[in-house]
Amino acid sequence: MNYQLGEGFWSRRIRQVCDRMIPLQLSILKDEEPDTEPSHALENFRIAAGLAEGDFHGMVFQDSDVGKWIEAAAYRLMISPDPELEAEIDRIVEVLGKAQQPDGYLNTWFTIREPGKRWTNLQDCHELYSFGHLAEGAVAYHQATGKDAFLKIMCRMADHIDTVLGPEEGKLHGYPGHPEAELALYRLYLETGEERYLKLSRYFLDQRGTEPNFFLQEAERRGFISHWTGKKETVSLPYYQAHQPVRQQEEAVGHAVRALYLYTAMASVAAETGDAELKEACRKLWHSAAEQKMYVTGGLGATAKGEAFMGPYELPNDTAYAETCASVALCFFARAMSRLERDGRYGDAAELALYNTVLAGVSLQADRFFYVNPLEVVRGVSGVQQGLEHDLPERPRWYACACCPPNVARLLTSLKEYAVQEDPGEITVHQYLDGTVECGQATLTLRTEYPWDGLLSYHIEAREELKLFLRIPGWAERTEVALELDGKALSAGPEKGFVRLELTKGRHEIRLSLPLRPRRIYAHERVRQDAGCVAFACGPLVYCLEGCDNPEPLWNLKADPAAEITLTDREPECLGGVRKMRIPGFRREDRSEELYSSRPPVYVPQMLTAIPYYAWANREARDMRVWIRE
Amino acid sequence: MNYQLGEGFWSRRIRQVCDRMIPLQLSILKDEEPDTEPSHALENFRIAAGLAEGDFHGMVFQDSDVGKWIEAAAYRLMISPDPELEAEIDRIVEVLGKAQQPDGYLNTWFTIREPGKRWTNLQDCHELYSFGHLAEGAVAYHQATGKDAFLKIMCRMADHIDTVLGPEEGKLHGYPGHPEAELALYRLYLETGEERYLKLSRYFLDQRGTEPNFFLQEAERRGFISHWTGKKETVSLPYYQAHQPVRQQEEAVGHAVRALYLYTAMASVAAETGDAELKEACRKLWHSAAEQKMYVTGGLGATAKGEAFMGPYELPNDTAYAETCASVALCFFARAMSRLERDGRYGDAAELALYNTVLAGVSLQADRFFYVNPLEVVRGVSGVQQGLEHDLPERPRWYACACCPPNVARLLTSLKEYAVQEDPGEITVHQYLDGTVECGQATLTLRTEYPWDGLLSYHIEAREELKLFLRIPGWAERTEVALELDGKALSAGPEKGFVRLELTKGRHEIRLSLPLRPRRIYAHERVRQDAGCVAFACGPLVYCLEGCDNPEPLWNLKADPAAEITLTDREPECLGGVRKMRIPGFRREDRSEELYSSRPPVYVPQMLTAIPYYAWANREARDMRVWIRE
Repeated sequence: MNYQLGEGFWSRRIRQVCDRMIPLQLSILKDEEPDTEPSHALENFRIAAGLAEGDFHGMVFQDSDVGKWIEAAAYRLMISPDPELEAEIDRIVEVLGKAQQPDGYLNTWFTIREPGKRWTNLQDCHELYSFGHLAEGAVAYHQATGKDAFLKIMCRMADHIDTVLGPEEGKLHGYPGHPEAELALYRLYLETGEERYLKLSRYFLDQRGTEPNFFLQEAERRGFISHWTGKKETVSLPYYQAHQPVRQQEEAVGHAVRALYLYTAMASVAAETGDAELKEACRKLWHSAAEQKMYVTGGLGATAKGEAFMGPYELPNDTAYAETCASVALCFFARAMSRLERDGRYGDAAELALYNTVLAGVSLQADRFFYVNPLEVVRGVSGVQQGLEHDLPERPRWYACACCPPNVARLLTSLKEYAVQEDPGEITVHQYLDGTVECGQATLTLRTEYPWDGLLSYHIEAREELKLFLRIPGWAERTEVALELDGKALSAGPEKGFVRLELTKGRHEIRLSLPLRPRRIYAHERVRQDAGCVAFACGPLVYCLEGCDNPEPLWNLKADPAAEITLTDREPECLGGVRKMRIPGFRREDRSEELYSSRPPVYVPQMLTAIPYYAWANREARDMRVWIRE
Repeated sequence: MNYQLGEGFWSRRIRQVCDRMIPLQLSILKDEEPDTEPSHALENFRIAAGLAEGDFHGMVFQDSDVGKWIEAAAYRLMISPDPELEAEIDRIVEVLGKAQQPDGYLNTWFTIREPGKRWTNLQDCHELYSFGHLAEGAVAYHQATGKDAFLKIMCRMADHIDTVLGPEEGKLHGYPGHPEAELALYRLYLETGEERYLKLSRYFLDQRGTEPNFFLQEAERRGFISHWTGKKETVSLPYYQAHQPVRQQEEAVGHAVRALYLYTAMASVAAETGDAELKEACRKLWHSAAEQKMYVTGGLGATAKGEAFMGPYELPNDTAYAETCASVALCFFARAMSRLERDGRYGDAAELALYNTVLAGVSLQADRFFYVNPLEVVRGVSGVQQGLEHDLPERPRWYACACCPPNVARLLTSLKEYAVQEDPGEITVHQYLDGTVECGQATLTLRTEYPWDGLLSYHIEAREELKLFLRIPGWAERTEVALELDGKALSAGPEKGFVRLELTKGRHEIRLSLPLRPRRIYAHERVRQDAGCVAFACGPLVYCLEGCDNPEPLWNLKADPAAEITLTDREPECLGGVRKMRIPGFRREDRSEELYSSRPPVYVPQMLTAIPYYAWANREARDMRVWIRE
């Protein structure tokens, strides 16, 4: 599947990733970026390869940053050639090859710091995680260039892992502390056809959480001493999704990114193997994660403690964690679920995550990054006070744990994979990605100003007769959706979120019109933090209020539940050309003298102004709020 | 000042403290209470005295539990004799005397565990804190019985401290990590007339937070190793209120109980010495603590992290710490401020704390205790989920750190001291304490069912001509307050919260009628957590909704802002005879299918039932909420 950029919303963002984020991230990986903490990730490989002297620096999973960056860069090469970038990757791969040990082992932490301790702490030391990201990078680079040096390196490492872990006697009966190798092994299998990789991926899934519990046994062997604290720590199995066999898991718990990577692997393997039990577990976990524990912005993982899911419907706005990586991972999970069954809810959730939390993770200049995405920010409180230290009111430039920016980069540069799915005789459109996607059976060109305008114009060249499935977003009022095929109106009533069009061989023009009107959103009655509040959205974009546009404090504003909400025209100078929302409402006018009094608050009319959530914190640092009192 | 119990609200509670809490606490101190973790506090003294073998157990400040209990027991003896209890205390005092070291030093932790390390960690090791509580107990016991054995022991310790700490060269220029010795030294001075004690108390206050900072120097000497974690820790000076000289402090910060003990000592010394600068600092700190950082229930210290104050107006309800001890300490501070200047706001805040958070700290059976007093509790979330582990939905029996129950006991048994203040030619009534308070100049007998009924009937025998000041609570509508002296109506318009009555020598009858009607309370516009919400009160009692009386979840209930609220009659079987509140309102009726939707919530009428906050969690464990959406 090839993709050529267009001129619309996503093309502009992807172009920014290609032109700014990927070079910036390379510069950081090479420790060349001024005013930025050195990553040391490439230097670690040079040291492990014997090409440089020095000690390991960074997180125990620092290698993964290189893997994720190569993966993003490889997708970028698929969009348009860049010999310089390719040569840069080849040079890195050469170093990686030299850092690989004679038995195929590749991990700079253990090679430099703890050569004798390989595979002694699967729970925390991320060996399989780093392998996984490097392997995904290798697969992507092979796909982009046909060069197999990196792929071979990672297959050697996979082969080595296969000698160390597995069900056979004498092997460790373990699995990754941070799921990722499961996904990578599946992709290695798809790329190489090597069944052992699929088998090992399935083993990791099936072994997870079984009795006797591997992590508990492993922790006992090291006296329960934690890699992170150097002290005795108890093992929280739910944090690692290792509290139950995965087929029995029904609730999304623990570290949100770990969980969503795991579920993605489960769904991928279920699709590959037709495993009905695994599919059913995936459905339940999807329901829990996306339909009980997801913020209205597509954020997941409500608490900073363990970067984890909280209980169902427990979605605090000001202390939210909602890591950018978790929303990226939700897109992975959604894509895998979409392969399991055609249901628009997966694309709906991915769309929400993409347009809101994923994009909010990156500044409009693509040079600063949120890792944590709260839904309420209060100056002097957020980022400062107890329990809110992680909720920053401004995007920092870079983190020591630089997981999110390369994750966004690899997601957006491969967005075609999330937008379009090709099966024999069928093409399914999950996301409206402007530009041209070339499949085997057809070429789809989308011209649109979506999400600013609801008109989606497809030009399709079908190389054979096929069925085209278009996702009709769940937020769109059915009666207001209009669909035309080659000038003829069709019913746009979707089934499980999709309309089906029968295309003959040849050229077709499709016009899909979605109702882009501001709408109010109310939370489930069990979400206590949003009780009495309303959020605003237009199409896939969730809006928020910022202090730049509204009188602070924002909690003293109320929206009029009945008044008409309008959209402004786009102004190119304003936040990259967003449409703002004008919401009639009220603000509390009285000034209190006492902390508590019996005088009821006095409200006066106030026009509220909202901007898309993804664009927040791109001006002066002020308060922000998604849920507004009504 | 003597006090005889009556038959009203406070007398019943004080009787419970005397008859149940004090014996229960003794039984716990003696490690004799079944199903309760042994306190070991008395055993520590026996070991230090050489009367038993064994190791120290408990908190580093375990000694203080004994001091606080003796103080409460002494007040209890002042109410009515109890030879058995007195003999019990004498036996304890004998052990304390034997545990005292030849140089006067008395502290079981350092005597048993770290004999060579006395006075090396004032910041964390509570030597001066434990001394202070024991000394307060000694003063009270001397006042109650005239026996001076305990007082002499504690004076010897005070004398010893005076040789170790102070401004002179060769002494440590330190002060208590947890303020308390300042208060105790002041009381020792009042009891013995020894000026050195007042001087040392003032030194502790004046030295605090000066440069070079004592705690930083001390921490450097021990390599910044923390007593609590055994690891290197930075010193947070605001936590200890040691970040600035106390006269420069304007904001209540850090550990709430430490802060309020410190401010109490500052106000006490300011009253004693007429120190205007210190008085001004006290006023500012009062404003910050009680008028910017206090919950509507009289709770203080919004965060569990450091049991500390958060920023101004930052008052989260579900994660509140609001330690019972902090509300007890607010009563201390209020009493000291009342001695500095006659202003009803001090008594108002003390009344709020007393009737709500202090009483909520004790079950209606006086056998279980809250240390933490949230304003919102959600089953399955409170006490369980991240950041809310400390907010328990049910009172536990006893804590390892048993600070709160004896603090409540000593406050309630000495409530007369907070209710009535005697000065030459003047008596000031701060709190309406039923029963008989015998002052030097007059005897005041109050018969009332307050706070269930607004009629307060005083019979006063004035032994000389005097001015009587009665606090008119700030919550009382002036126009609805009625006052009669010997059958003649007087103006009840208060000045700075007090009406003044001129009493001739002889008997007088005063009838004060306060309007006990349910009222709504709204929070300051800067309290974001209470925006859009209303609380309910009647007289000094703040009310809350419990799941036992209302359909859960409580966040889906709304109060009608205009409807009339009624009070039920008292039912003796119901929570010890409270009056419930009936509040017309609404509940969200729709059942959501989706996590988010555009369907506005549907509300139906619902009568809400509220109970006094102090009585919550005395039935089945259900949800609770003070602030209700309006």
